[in-house]
Amino acid sequence: MQYNAFGQNATPYSIGNTYKIHSKILKEDRSYILELPSSYKTSKAKYPILVLLDGEISYHSHSGILKQMTEGRQIPEMIIVAITNVDRVRDYTPTNYLTNLNGSSAVDNHKTSGGSAEFLKFMEEELLPKIEKTYRTSAFKTLVGISHGGLLVGSAFLSKETSFNAFVSMDPSFWWDNQYLIKQLENTDLNQIKDKRIYVSTADKFENFDRIPHVFTTNINSQENFNTTLKNKGFSPNQVAFEYFKEENHWTVALISLYQGMQFIYKGLKMKNAQESTLEEIITYYKTYYNGEFLPPENEINAIGYYHLKNDIKKALPFFKLNVSNYPTSSNAFDSLGEVYMGSGDKEKALKNYKESLRLNPKNANAKKIIEQLSAKKNN
Amino acid sequence: MQYNAFGQNATPYSIGNTYKIHSKILKEDRSYILELPSSYKTSKAKYPILVLLDGEISYHSHSGILKQMTEGRQIPEMIIVAITNVDRVRDYTPTNYLTNLNGSSAVDNHKTSGGSAEFLKFMEEELLPKIEKTYRTSAFKTLVGISHGGLLVGSAFLSKETSFNAFVSMDPSFWWDNQYLIKQLENTDLNQIKDKRIYVSTADKFENFDRIPHVFTTNINSQENFNTTLKNKGFSPNQVAFEYFKEENHWTVALISLYQGMQFIYKGLKMKNAQESTLEEIITYYKTYYNGEFLPPENEINAIGYYHLKNDIKKALPFFKLNVSNYPTSSNAFDSLGEVYMGSGDKEKALKNYKESLRLNPKNANAKKIIEQLSAKKNN
Repeated sequence: MQYNAFGQNATPYSIGNTYKIHSKILKEDRSYILELPSSYKTSKAKYPILVLLDGEISYHSHSGILKQMTEGRQIPEMIIVAITNVDRVRDYTPTNYLTNLNGSSAVDNHKTSGGSAEFLKFMEEELLPKIEKTYRTSAFKTLVGISHGGLLVGSAFLSKETSFNAFVSMDPSFWWDNQYLIKQLENTDLNQIKDKRIYVSTADKFENFDRIPHVFTTNINSQENFNTTLKNKGFSPNQVAFEYFKEENHWTVALISLYQGMQFIYKGLKMKNAQESTLEEIITYYKTYYNGEFLPPENEINAIGYYHLKNDIKKALPFFKLNVSNYPTSSNAFDSLGEVYMGSGDKEKALKNYKESLRLNPKNANAKKIIEQLSAKKNN
Repeated sequence: MQYNAFGQNATPYSIGNTYKIHSKILKEDRSYILELPSSYKTSKAKYPILVLLDGEISYHSHSGILKQMTEGRQIPEMIIVAITNVDRVRDYTPTNYLTNLNGSSAVDNHKTSGGSAEFLKFMEEELLPKIEKTYRTSAFKTLVGISHGGLLVGSAFLSKETSFNAFVSMDPSFWWDNQYLIKQLENTDLNQIKDKRIYVSTADKFENFDRIPHVFTTNINSQENFNTTLKNKGFSPNQVAFEYFKEENHWTVALISLYQGMQFIYKGLKMKNAQESTLEEIITYYKTYYNGEFLPPENEINAIGYYHLKNDIKKALPFFKLNVSNYPTSSNAFDSLGEVYMGSGDKEKALKNYKESLRLNPKNANAKKIIEQLSAKKNN
């Protein structure tokens, strides 16, 4: 893709690495592109995993959007794993079905279809265990795909064995095999899926569907059918979002779907009215959010601590204590706690926390300065 | 940023190259990240340039979004040049102004401010000439920036010497130095700017402005003031878009602004009702669109040709002829024209065009097959 016109002066701009893994289940070598979060190297935290399908197409734009959303604090830092394709029709479809969406024969292009169960097994039993063994990961996992990839996201959502918690399915091929997936959904026990969260987007423009409106309608209908069936089963409306994009087509809908979908998946990670809540209310809230997969976010708790610090140091202290307890490798959490003890005149505890902060981050100039001041005073 | 945990198996995933250029104007070395369009190597076409500011932050996500928008045919292929920062306050601001947006002293952090004229000169006289000398570029140029970078986009828009045609200014710092830019706009001759197109976005959430509503309002007001002043001058409402994002803040607004902004910049590149228009109407339309900077898009003209081909081969022919005339290095344009001549029974002209198509792309198996058939018949 990249044409290097004057090589002597050019340094490649890299946004991750491609890795290989041999799959015994799929009996082939597979590749994935992986990028660790910015803070990975300097922290000891565990990170959620996000798996992207159609990696060779999606990775560049999707990882860029996710990175910028992370920096804007719309979503937490994640380890991104983008699986590249060998045979997407085979891997992403649940049945061997030899007909195109427009009704024409697909004997050739759907020949290998029907391998999604094997592909899901590959992800659960080979790929994810390797990622979890190699990196510091939390248990929370998101799966993102478009079109046939969106169909696979739907299959994963209904799978008993899935370890994914959140699903972004963009303009998915739910029409596949007379809406096979919706029949599967009808036969799925609500308890098995009720704690998951799923976002489904639909594109309204049909330019890419042979410009044939009724073909296009078949696709949209299947998506609406999925949504209705899910709600009729008693699935919580708070756990599913179904978004309709009037101005997007099957290809352009990905960018806006990812942006909206990820905000939906992480809706509530920043607790509403947290500043007015007690510490107990906040702790209880995060115990129920995704079944306690996420600790109260460090930066939010820190901000609330400083908010209370202006009026009531006693009220503020437990928030800073919570952060050092939840994030025992965060230099900043200890720095903040040190600052509170300084303010309350407890120089011994202040010194102890600043020392721990400096130990965790030897570049913390503020901690260094205060430790020197406190030590100097002690010696006087 | 990237932590490589098992290097033996990892291949860097690169999305461009970083290059260095020495600037005599700025008296320093500068860097930029550059990516050529996917088709660059195999085509002989000239491409528009898009310059991104704050390259080290913006490049990953913005180039990804642009790439996917290109593949979805929302925008044409472009050469992307992302300039990385040395001193963004110096380079992006028009005056030396030592006060922050919230009124506090900025003696330290604005110390170097006021260098935008020099930075614009660097772009026009050093960077762009180098890009134009090195690559096949068309004359059309777009500039994209956020915050102080958005302010620089505004300064470029008003500059007499600018070669940029289109401007995307995201939540710009138009408040700078008592709205210095708006005073500049008031004194700018309409004729100098009337052919340009500018998109300005505004973020409605003020979390990032010290949570002080009136500070935030100052910023928004300056942007609205810019918009009003521009329209009062008689600037065409079709050439400016001003978009207000209720749910975005100063940092998160970039992604959606780029997506919407680029669609606005290229609005009309796909002519409305082109299928129902005569060839002359289409040619006239593109002569006025951005003063003729763009030829009628090859794929659109090709599609219209095939549309007419179903009913009237005589009506279709000129469209295919236009494409080989406008895109003399496009293998597909000659392949299509060959197909039309085949359909009309003019085997000699068909053969000539298929041969040219194969010469331009030796991998064109279809052309190869038909040439063999036609040559075989000739010899019988």
